[in-house]
Amino acid sequence: MALSEFELIARYFQCAPGHDANIELGIGDDAAVVNVPPGHSLVMSLDTLVSGIHFPEDSAAADIAYKALAVNLSDMAAMGARPNWLLLGLTLPQVDEAWLGAFSRSLKGLADEHGLALIGGDTTHGPLTVTVQINGLVPRGEALRRSGARPGELIYVSGQLGDAGLGLKLELQQLELDLPLARCDYFLRRLRRPTPRLALGQALRGVAGAAIDVSDGLLADLGHILDASGVGAVVDVERLPVAQEIMGLPDEWWRLPLCSGDDYELCFTVPPEKGGLLEERLKEVDCPCRCIGRIESKNGLKLLHYGREIETETLKGYLHFD
Amino acid sequence: MALSEFELIARYFQCAPGHDANIELGIGDDAAVVNVPPGHSLVMSLDTLVSGIHFPEDSAAADIAYKALAVNLSDMAAMGARPNWLLLGLTLPQVDEAWLGAFSRSLKGLADEHGLALIGGDTTHGPLTVTVQINGLVPRGEALRRSGARPGELIYVSGQLGDAGLGLKLELQQLELDLPLARCDYFLRRLRRPTPRLALGQALRGVAGAAIDVSDGLLADLGHILDASGVGAVVDVERLPVAQEIMGLPDEWWRLPLCSGDDYELCFTVPPEKGGLLEERLKEVDCPCRCIGRIESKNGLKLLHYGREIETETLKGYLHFD
Repeated sequence: MALSEFELIARYFQCAPGHDANIELGIGDDAAVVNVPPGHSLVMSLDTLVSGIHFPEDSAAADIAYKALAVNLSDMAAMGARPNWLLLGLTLPQVDEAWLGAFSRSLKGLADEHGLALIGGDTTHGPLTVTVQINGLVPRGEALRRSGARPGELIYVSGQLGDAGLGLKLELQQLELDLPLARCDYFLRRLRRPTPRLALGQALRGVAGAAIDVSDGLLADLGHILDASGVGAVVDVERLPVAQEIMGLPDEWWRLPLCSGDDYELCFTVPPEKGGLLEERLKEVDCPCRCIGRIESKNGLKLLHYGREIETETLKGYLHFD
Repeated sequence: MALSEFELIARYFQCAPGHDANIELGIGDDAAVVNVPPGHSLVMSLDTLVSGIHFPEDSAAADIAYKALAVNLSDMAAMGARPNWLLLGLTLPQVDEAWLGAFSRSLKGLADEHGLALIGGDTTHGPLTVTVQINGLVPRGEALRRSGARPGELIYVSGQLGDAGLGLKLELQQLELDLPLARCDYFLRRLRRPTPRLALGQALRGVAGAAIDVSDGLLADLGHILDASGVGAVVDVERLPVAQEIMGLPDEWWRLPLCSGDDYELCFTVPPEKGGLLEERLKEVDCPCRCIGRIESKNGLKLLHYGREIETETLKGYLHFD
């Protein structure tokens, strides 16, 4: 690699300093130095995207950057945190200036949208891999957790489920579907440029019992809430928020929203007595949410279709782990 | 990959919770939640090691884990910070339980040595890559920086320089050298298991004008201090702390300590009037430090050998960037 990591980071990722008074030292030293304001906790997560695994090898640089940041922002949303600072680990097979330009513009664009500053990272030579480490703030004691679901709470999901899953099938040409171009673009965009539900996550502080983002599919992710909380649930599959096009697909209409990942919607639980408060908060947030079931004390996840139970065993073969 | 990332992380990297009261939430949710104690700043860095680039493809798992953590700890040392929390991004070509066991034991061993807790991360499928994101604490306003060197300050380095460079030549069999096995092991160990100078870094708070860790070679890293501080320097190469075996090698005796990387010693500057304070602090730290030169107001780095200038142009061909 002709350019040193130092020059690379400086050239493409340096951002204007000083717009966040909590940053004492940004890119350019051995480490960044930041201050957490009083009364706040720091919320930290890290996600890696690998070429050929998490995105196709011929993906556009702008899409890769967008998704790498968006999936991390989604973790902040699930915690009810406001994202503040990020570190970037970028492993590149070669220095392609056009690629780097497109990648960094896309990353900065989404970061700026959320008032997020890049404060450090590392650029290395190797197979294309993008690691984003993101840091947010939450008022002390108000972080949303997976473990807070209690029997009787209602289960909600934001947006629509299965869109990214359909997008993946379209991308892989696994589905014969005669869609208008605009709708095809919509589903591909849901896959490639997911919308992190940050405003919703923050609105759910003090309201939701538990929360998670739907990255691996609703069954898997709601399952994490149930495991962490030591409870069970009933989900009414006819209430799942699903695109019209998916509703028309035999079997897929319930498999896609339940089992396909990458939607990055939020799944959360709310005690019934906080229903009014939830409604109030949702008015301030531009994101539809739908109640799809309730938490039970008996362990396990029961799927009902107009009251008749669906055997979850039939779904098992559909679940995938990479 | 048969195991989901969730199971992997849980099985190999889960650590006993509760030994750090500042951790509100560790591994197992969408993100970790920590509290920064009052009066402290958070110091954050991230480094990636790629198989075949930063370590040979047949490296032992324990060595890979050790080095990945040690080079990040070295960044904390260079900032004068105490390391507290780490996030791990691990990309693996396959799930090899013996490999994972050795990797996680080595990582935990070094982490425990420094009271460091693993609080999160991501395990993905792909070419072997290890990203460590490390977080330390420093009393507010006391972080060491590259930019603080002032004319008249003395330049010091810790330990010995060039050891890891000789280790690399031995590993690559680029050098015919008849060394006793114990010495051969010593140099290889300096390459594979560098010692982060954490106690030294913390002892230098309020003493050093500027500091950096020597990862890319003294010339490059001292150069970063000079650039960031807008100053120059004179280094007396005969004062470089170098192993006996390296002293005996024609040309290499000065090239290795100046140009080879991976030593992870500290290079720092100290105002002459703080010489007494430095001496006091060094007594508390088990790490020899040697004065090798001084900061000048005139830009550029001048190398002297018993007072005669060495043409830095002759070194250029020796500098490498990966």
